Amino acid sequence: MEYRKIKDEEDQIGDGVVGDAVTSRGVSPSKVTSFPTGSVDRLRWKRKMVVTLALTILTSSQAILIVWSKRAGKYEYSVTTANFMVETLKCALSLAALARTWKKEGVTEDNRLSTTFDEVKVYPIPAALYLVKNLLQYYIFAYVNAPGYQILKNLNIISTGVLYRIILKRKLSEVQWAGFILLCAGCTTAQLNPTSDHVLETPLQGWMMAIVMALLSGFAGVYTEAIIKKRPSRNINVQNFWLYVFGMIFNAVAIVTQDFDAVVNKGFFYGYSLITTLMILNHALSGIAVSMVMKYADNIVKVYSTSVAMLLTAVVSVFLFDFHLSLAFFLGSTVVSVSVYLHSVGKMQR
Amino acid sequence: MEYRKIKDEEDQIGDGVVGDAVTSRGVSPSKVTSFPTGSVDRLRWKRKMVVTLALTILTSSQAILIVWSKRAGKYEYSVTTANFMVETLKCALSLAALARTWKKEGVTEDNRLSTTFDEVKVYPIPAALYLVKNLLQYYIFAYVNAPGYQILKNLNIISTGVLYRIILKRKLSEVQWAGFILLCAGCTTAQLNPTSDHVLETPLQGWMMAIVMALLSGFAGVYTEAIIKKRPSRNINVQNFWLYVFGMIFNAVAIVTQDFDAVVNKGFFYGYSLITTLMILNHALSGIAVSMVMKYADNIVKVYSTSVAMLLTAVVSVFLFDFHLSLAFFLGSTVVSVSVYLHSVGKMQR
Repeated sequence: MEYRKIKDEEDQIGDGVVGDAVTSRGVSPSKVTSFPTGSVDRLRWKRKMVVTLALTILTSSQAILIVWSKRAGKYEYSVTTANFMVETLKCALSLAALARTWKKEGVTEDNRLSTTFDEVKVYPIPAALYLVKNLLQYYIFAYVNAPGYQILKNLNIISTGVLYRIILKRKLSEVQWAGFILLCAGCTTAQLNPTSDHVLETPLQGWMMAIVMALLSGFAGVYTEAIIKKRPSRNINVQNFWLYVFGMIFNAVAIVTQDFDAVVNKGFFYGYSLITTLMILNHALSGIAVSMVMKYADNIVKVYSTSVAMLLTAVVSVFLFDFHLSLAFFLGSTVVSVSVYLHSVGKMQR
Repeated sequence: MEYRKIKDEEDQIGDGVVGDAVTSRGVSPSKVTSFPTGSVDRLRWKRKMVVTLALTILTSSQAILIVWSKRAGKYEYSVTTANFMVETLKCALSLAALARTWKKEGVTEDNRLSTTFDEVKVYPIPAALYLVKNLLQYYIFAYVNAPGYQILKNLNIISTGVLYRIILKRKLSEVQWAGFILLCAGCTTAQLNPTSDHVLETPLQGWMMAIVMALLSGFAGVYTEAIIKKRPSRNINVQNFWLYVFGMIFNAVAIVTQDFDAVVNKGFFYGYSLITTLMILNHALSGIAVSMVMKYADNIVKVYSTSVAMLLTAVVSVFLFDFHLSLAFFLGSTVVSVSVYLHSVGKMQR
């Protein structure tokens, strides 16, 4: 795959920066220490940390907003218009960021908005995959209940890891694989409740659908990373703009097919409240953070970030909503923490 | 501690066997590969595997016998006489093994039964520690119920790791420590049931007692290893014989103080059934297997072995007693399996 070639070149550039200290592949200090040595490396590491932290905090507050909105009563707004607003806001934010860049650096080959068919032809694919996955979501509830589905969704973690390996051809060390299995087990453990055992009674069709959905979701994520990283020098905001344009188109179709009457009769923004607005803003920012993590880190970091966010949400909910944490939550959190640690020490062995 | 010196010497001998291939400490093949290279190493590895496997199987069948005996009705025999019989049987088996050795190799400095005060003066300490722990066990039930106590007993895993590091001064690699924390979390997860959350309501005194008991139990195990390894060339059956003699004495005192009347009136073997006999036999063999693991492996291997045995017991019980395995059990088993894997790959990094 073309992406692989580019990644190799990027790796070589990265090696060059700390090349002086490299004596042999196996004992290179840049591989042994997880803390970066070169100044370019340090900048990259910082950027990676910032986007990862942003994603974690945004995902965590997203879940808290959902709990808050549920407590505030039923959703009265149309979900399709809200999704459309999220995509529109992401487009607008990308354009605003681009305008700043153009002012500072001028328009270059890498940051100009105009594109070629060859560049954008693959951009609708992730949006289409998510669409198929969301359609399947309606059918899986014939086989599992909502809490059971939450448990099965952790299969996404494994599918992302496997597809990351197969499609992006990037290796995880053995210890990192161990960490990834633990991440899945730990997240599931943290979500255990007295009714969780029902999930074991899921019929074969339910399991098959859950696996297909996990593969679709994992594939969409990994494919987005491949698209974004295919041209590393291309400005991320241009890439985002085109990704989100297709998001807008897909969601516009959804409004017309699903909520056309409601929107015409009650108006586009019917039922929007403060929480709705905050949720749209949060979803837009989280979406951009995901793209940034794909560009400057990878899908594995994304999965870790959103998993840790899930645990953070529960801890914050203790204070906000008087949640009770279970023993299973503590055990799952311990396993996830060890998993994060193993992912970082596992780099040494690559 | 004296033990440390001997361990260093032993390590040097061990290194000598594969010394030819060693170029530098960091990349020594004997450290990098977990599979042994020298013939002496291979023999040691084999012996270690056999005793570990024996301990796992015996511990697992021990738990199954307990379930079986509970199903068969109440214990009618006196527990103190059974414990005494276990110690006596262990003594007898050690003597039988020694007799064979004497016949084959003759009596040497290392395998003669006679001992010095200096050698045996520390032998009663582990038995005394276990006695104190067992006495505390009666009091902790004022604060936690039996299933809660089962959960808290997993603290033994952590205490053994910490004391192994402090007292025996042997290092675990970072990945091995991660594995050890996971072993504790995984075993606890596997034991989760709908009432487990009650353990979180344990009062401070209960936690303190549980920690003290875990430390006593961990200390007894680590101290036994120190005693047995203090003189590596000493025949293990002689060491066992003296350890078990003190076990017999302690249990004889327990019979006199606790069950004297019952034994005098009903007889020593009152209420003994086939299951009782099997349990005594199993306990005796398990006890010997523990000593062997201490001699040829270590406390860490012992903890892994008994933890895996706990999981095996549950799986076997599915077939024997129609047990239902919970989702928590599968998740916990996954975490324990990864932990076992990490312990073995973690050796590379030492």
